[in-house]
Amino acid sequence: MKQDCNSGKENCTKGNGIKEGMDAAVRNGAAKQSIADQIRGGLIVSCQALETEPLYSSYIMGRMAYAAMEGGAAGIRANTPQDIREIKKNVSLPVIGLYKAVYEDSEIYITPTLREVDALMEVCPEIIAMDATDRLRPGGRSLEDFFAEVKEKYPEMLFMADCSTYEDALRAQELGFDFAGTTLRGYTKATEGIPIPDYDLLQKMSKTLEIPVIAEGGIWERDQLKRVFACGIHAAVIGTAITRPRDITRRFVKAIQEE
Amino acid sequence: MKQDCNSGKENCTKGNGIKEGMDAAVRNGAAKQSIADQIRGGLIVSCQALETEPLYSSYIMGRMAYAAMEGGAAGIRANTPQDIREIKKNVSLPVIGLYKAVYEDSEIYITPTLREVDALMEVCPEIIAMDATDRLRPGGRSLEDFFAEVKEKYPEMLFMADCSTYEDALRAQELGFDFAGTTLRGYTKATEGIPIPDYDLLQKMSKTLEIPVIAEGGIWERDQLKRVFACGIHAAVIGTAITRPRDITRRFVKAIQEE
Repeated sequence: MKQDCNSGKENCTKGNGIKEGMDAAVRNGAAKQSIADQIRGGLIVSCQALETEPLYSSYIMGRMAYAAMEGGAAGIRANTPQDIREIKKNVSLPVIGLYKAVYEDSEIYITPTLREVDALMEVCPEIIAMDATDRLRPGGRSLEDFFAEVKEKYPEMLFMADCSTYEDALRAQELGFDFAGTTLRGYTKATEGIPIPDYDLLQKMSKTLEIPVIAEGGIWERDQLKRVFACGIHAAVIGTAITRPRDITRRFVKAIQEE
Repeated sequence: MKQDCNSGKENCTKGNGIKEGMDAAVRNGAAKQSIADQIRGGLIVSCQALETEPLYSSYIMGRMAYAAMEGGAAGIRANTPQDIREIKKNVSLPVIGLYKAVYEDSEIYITPTLREVDALMEVCPEIIAMDATDRLRPGGRSLEDFFAEVKEKYPEMLFMADCSTYEDALRAQELGFDFAGTTLRGYTKATEGIPIPDYDLLQKMSKTLEIPVIAEGGIWERDQLKRVFACGIHAAVIGTAITRPRDITRRFVKAIQEE
C-alpha cells in the first residue's frame, strides 16, 4: 500500500506537463501551475465526516466525492488517508488532503505534525492542507520551524495554508506555501465571532498575495459564492452546505422555528 | 421477512394510542391523528437515490435518514422497500414510503400499482405515498378504481396523495386520502413550467381542504420554507437540497458560471 508520492511524484502528476529530469523547483512550479489551472474559477467540494458524524464512512465519502464530480466540482477536499484513498478510487479530480488529529498540548488539529503529513503522502493528494496560524503546534513547535522540515522532506509537494488572518496568509506565502485559504477564519479564539465569509479579507488577500487565494468557510448560499468570487479569489471550497445533511437539516429546522 | 402491516398494524403503531378492539375506522382515525401530530409543523427529509444516482445505496440512505433525524427532522420520505427497511433500522421517525416503478403504458411512476403497495406494506411505512393525478395508471386504471381496491385491502393504512393541481388534492380528499402533498406540481405535462413552490396553490389547499397539506417540491432556501409554512401547511418535505450532493454541487457551480 505504501507509496512515496514525493520521489514518485511523476505517478501523481502524469499529464500535468511534468517531465523527468526537471529540477525540483522547476517541477514544483509546473505541477503547481497545472493544479492551480485545474481548480481556477472552480468549486472544491469538501467531503468530510468525523467519527462523531452520521456519515462517518470512507465508502460514503467516496460516493460523496463522486457526486460532487458529477455535479461539476473542480476539486475535492478530504480528511484522513483512508478517505482520500477511497476518494481517489472514485474520482479523477485534484484532492486537497488534510489529516485532523487532536493533541493535548496544542489547539492545532488540521495536519498538526509530521506524522500526519507522512501519512497523507502515502495516498498522494495533489495538495496537502495544514493549519497555518501562528499558534504553536504539538511539542511547542512554530509553523516556521515545522514547515521548513516538511518542505525539506517533501520539496515537490504542494501545500495549502489554512489561515485565520491576513497575517497568517502573508506569513504562509513567505514560508513557501502554494495556496492560501481562509479555512480557519472564525475558528480560532482570536477570530471567533467574525462573520464569515469575510469578504474584506478575501479581497485584501486576492489583491496583495502572489499565491492563489482559496475562499473556505461559511459559504451556504449561491449569493455568497458569487460574492467571494467577485473578491478576486482563485477557487472556493464548500463543505457542510453540500455534504453534511445533518447540518443542512438543522439549518432548515431552525428556519421553521424562527417563524 | 414478510410482515403484514395491516393486520399487524399494532406493531407499527405501538404507543400511538391505538387500542386493540377499536374498529378499523376508529383505529385509523387515532393512528392518523397521532402520525399527523408527529409531523405537524415539522420538516420531512426525503432520502432517495435512484439507480442512476451516485448515492444509490440503501446503506447510504439509512445514514442520510439518521443524519436528518439528528438534524431535527420530523419524518422521512423514502423510496423502495429496501431503503425503507434500512431506514427503519436507523431511525424512529414516521416514514412516508413510496415505490417508484416505470410501466410502459403509463406516465405514473410513484407507487403506480397494487404490486408496489403490497411490497411497501411488507416494510411498515407509517404512510404510503402515491401519484394522485388524474392520469391513467398501468392497465388503464383510474385513480378512483385503483385507490378503492387499495383501501379495501388495507383499510387501516394512511395514504398521502402526491398531487399536481388543486383538483387532484380535492379528489384525493374525497377518495379518502389522509394527506395531500404538492409533490407532482411542475412534474406533469399539464403543470410543466409552473414555478414551484406554488404558494397560491398551497394557501388554497390549506384553507379549503380538511386533510393536512404537505408542501413538497422546489424548496431550496430557508425563505421558501418559511413562506410555505406561512401558507398554513401542515408539514414540508425537502429532498434534493439536503440529500442530493450532486444536485447541490451543480446548483453552486451554475451560480459561479452565471458571474
